[in-house]
Amino acid sequence: MNVDPFLDTSIEWIDNPLEPIDEDRMTKARARQNSLTKPPGSLGMLETIAIRLAGMQGLEAPDIKKPAITVFAADHGVARHGVSAFPQSVTAEMVRNFSAGGAAISVLARSIGARLEVVNVGTMVALEAMNGVVDQRIAAGTADMMTNESMSEAQFAAALNSGRAAVERAHDAGADLFIGGDMGIANTTSATAIACALLDLPAGDLSGPGTGLNADGVRHKATVITRALVRHRELLKDPFDALRCLGGFEIAALAGAWIRCAQVRMPMVIDGFISSVAALVVNTRNPDIGARMFHSHRSAEPGHRKVLEAMCVTPLVDFGMRLGEGSGAAVVVPLMRLACELHNHMATFSQAGVSDGSNDST
Amino acid sequence: MNVDPFLDTSIEWIDNPLEPIDEDRMTKARARQNSLTKPPGSLGMLETIAIRLAGMQGLEAPDIKKPAITVFAADHGVARHGVSAFPQSVTAEMVRNFSAGGAAISVLARSIGARLEVVNVGTMVALEAMNGVVDQRIAAGTADMMTNESMSEAQFAAALNSGRAAVERAHDAGADLFIGGDMGIANTTSATAIACALLDLPAGDLSGPGTGLNADGVRHKATVITRALVRHRELLKDPFDALRCLGGFEIAALAGAWIRCAQVRMPMVIDGFISSVAALVVNTRNPDIGARMFHSHRSAEPGHRKVLEAMCVTPLVDFGMRLGEGSGAAVVVPLMRLACELHNHMATFSQAGVSDGSNDST
Repeated sequence: MNVDPFLDTSIEWIDNPLEPIDEDRMTKARARQNSLTKPPGSLGMLETIAIRLAGMQGLEAPDIKKPAITVFAADHGVARHGVSAFPQSVTAEMVRNFSAGGAAISVLARSIGARLEVVNVGTMVALEAMNGVVDQRIAAGTADMMTNESMSEAQFAAALNSGRAAVERAHDAGADLFIGGDMGIANTTSATAIACALLDLPAGDLSGPGTGLNADGVRHKATVITRALVRHRELLKDPFDALRCLGGFEIAALAGAWIRCAQVRMPMVIDGFISSVAALVVNTRNPDIGARMFHSHRSAEPGHRKVLEAMCVTPLVDFGMRLGEGSGAAVVVPLMRLACELHNHMATFSQAGVSDGSNDST
Repeated sequence: MNVDPFLDTSIEWIDNPLEPIDEDRMTKARARQNSLTKPPGSLGMLETIAIRLAGMQGLEAPDIKKPAITVFAADHGVARHGVSAFPQSVTAEMVRNFSAGGAAISVLARSIGARLEVVNVGTMVALEAMNGVVDQRIAAGTADMMTNESMSEAQFAAALNSGRAAVERAHDAGADLFIGGDMGIANTTSATAIACALLDLPAGDLSGPGTGLNADGVRHKATVITRALVRHRELLKDPFDALRCLGGFEIAALAGAWIRCAQVRMPMVIDGFISSVAALVVNTRNPDIGARMFHSHRSAEPGHRKVLEAMCVTPLVDFGMRLGEGSGAAVVVPLMRLACELHNHMATFSQAGVSDGSNDST
């Protein structure tokens, strides 16, 4: 059922029905939590994680046996305006680092026992074949959003379909959790522009240092974003048009991945700013997709807070991370696993012969 | 080097020198973090964890191979005033549940590969011998703090020494991280009273629902605490006297454990409210002990926020947990391990051939 983004430019699938959440499983999971040897609610968010995962997976004993991580990498035309602290060559260099196992997400994937795949959806230069890297390079980076739509309709469809195909490969391989990550020098500029368009906020409110701009750099970045927003203002009412005009290939691929996860009963963990902006795009179009998402962390990138607030979600952790690559999402997998272990393996009050709170105090 | 708390009532060891933190290792660890293939600082708190742990362990490659968890269990005289949603019999029942492997901390210990030990420092009734439970029962619970000092000087010394001995057993067994947990019906009443004494705050500001009191129950609990604070007001200037007059055996044992950890180069992870109050006591007496602590989570118990603020610390996670047993501390161990893995195994910019941010943008 894989889709080759270069053969299939239809995106009709994005409106396919979502896999239902199993409400009955969630009710039973909630009842089980209240029967375990602890004051009801005393495991806090760990209880919520287990209950939601039971509903998403449709399992009595929710579990994360085979997490899959896909990092989408692409370059950005807007990088030419000097909006990043790092040179554009780093996108391709990091793809090599992912493949060689030296990047943060490589280390995390090994540590949590996850399958790691990198999809090149558009580095500036074509790359040699590499272990663990899928070549679906749509173009030599996006066009410069200050002067052009970032993607043509066909390129946008290819990016969405690349995300869809990655989720389907993970699904076919038996994955029970999907993490999507991003790599692309200048992609906080692109993501910030999209967030400004969807939230109707000025660039100055959301622009941040990304990989490490100083205050002057952030001001320049906001100016670039403002000009792009003005340039495309007629097309920014629709979230998908905003994504196409301002986005990167990797952000569109993430959006396609999030939609497909919701269609194939694949719980998804959203990473940081870039990943959340893709989530905001798909949730704006169909809020039900959001009910299948776990939000992993609050990034140090200042715009992330507003994007999370717009989705009314609280992420699991707040570590001041701002790396991308899916790293924040990978970090919470062990926490989600502990939530499952507690849910599945703690004794109930009756099993353990422990008095519950309905007894009188003695 | 173990201490039998029933033979040795001296507590002179509490003023022994602390094991120094290796500042040179920390400097080198910080430099390594800045050489890894990521924007400097972009792993946020995960970088801080690895750097601090390197300094505490004195290792180039910090690691958590053998975490040890000790849960101290005891009953409280003040429980007779109906300050808990659960009956006092639950303390002993939960000791059996820990031993049988059904409690939250039992599941977590297995999941993270930790040695779990329970020390009975004072259940109401003597308990049968159980696997994994050390019997150091000082008395049949503490005295009622509303009318008496909770512990005599000799009992207080025995509790501190029980904590010391637990850390030494862990140390002798090769543990490289220590987690101390608590079990004791009514112990949030005791811990709240201690926090009120040390922070000079009224009981109404810090009292919370504990295992699940309603609003009337919380008001009653605050009244009980206020009366205890008035009863012992002449003795509450000194943090150790406050701990002795208002504390539980398990809270004093935790205080002894925290001190000993700092003396034997054993990084310690503080759990929730009870655990943090014991930390506040020892840090008030010797703030240098705090530099050897990791604070795991912010409990839903409202007083915890103020106790953490008083120590000027931000815990790693905020999951709304309120269980005790060391459960919140155990939950963060996988995060600390990931921090170590990233620190030890990511590639540097030069190893990976990735351009760093000092290059011009292209």
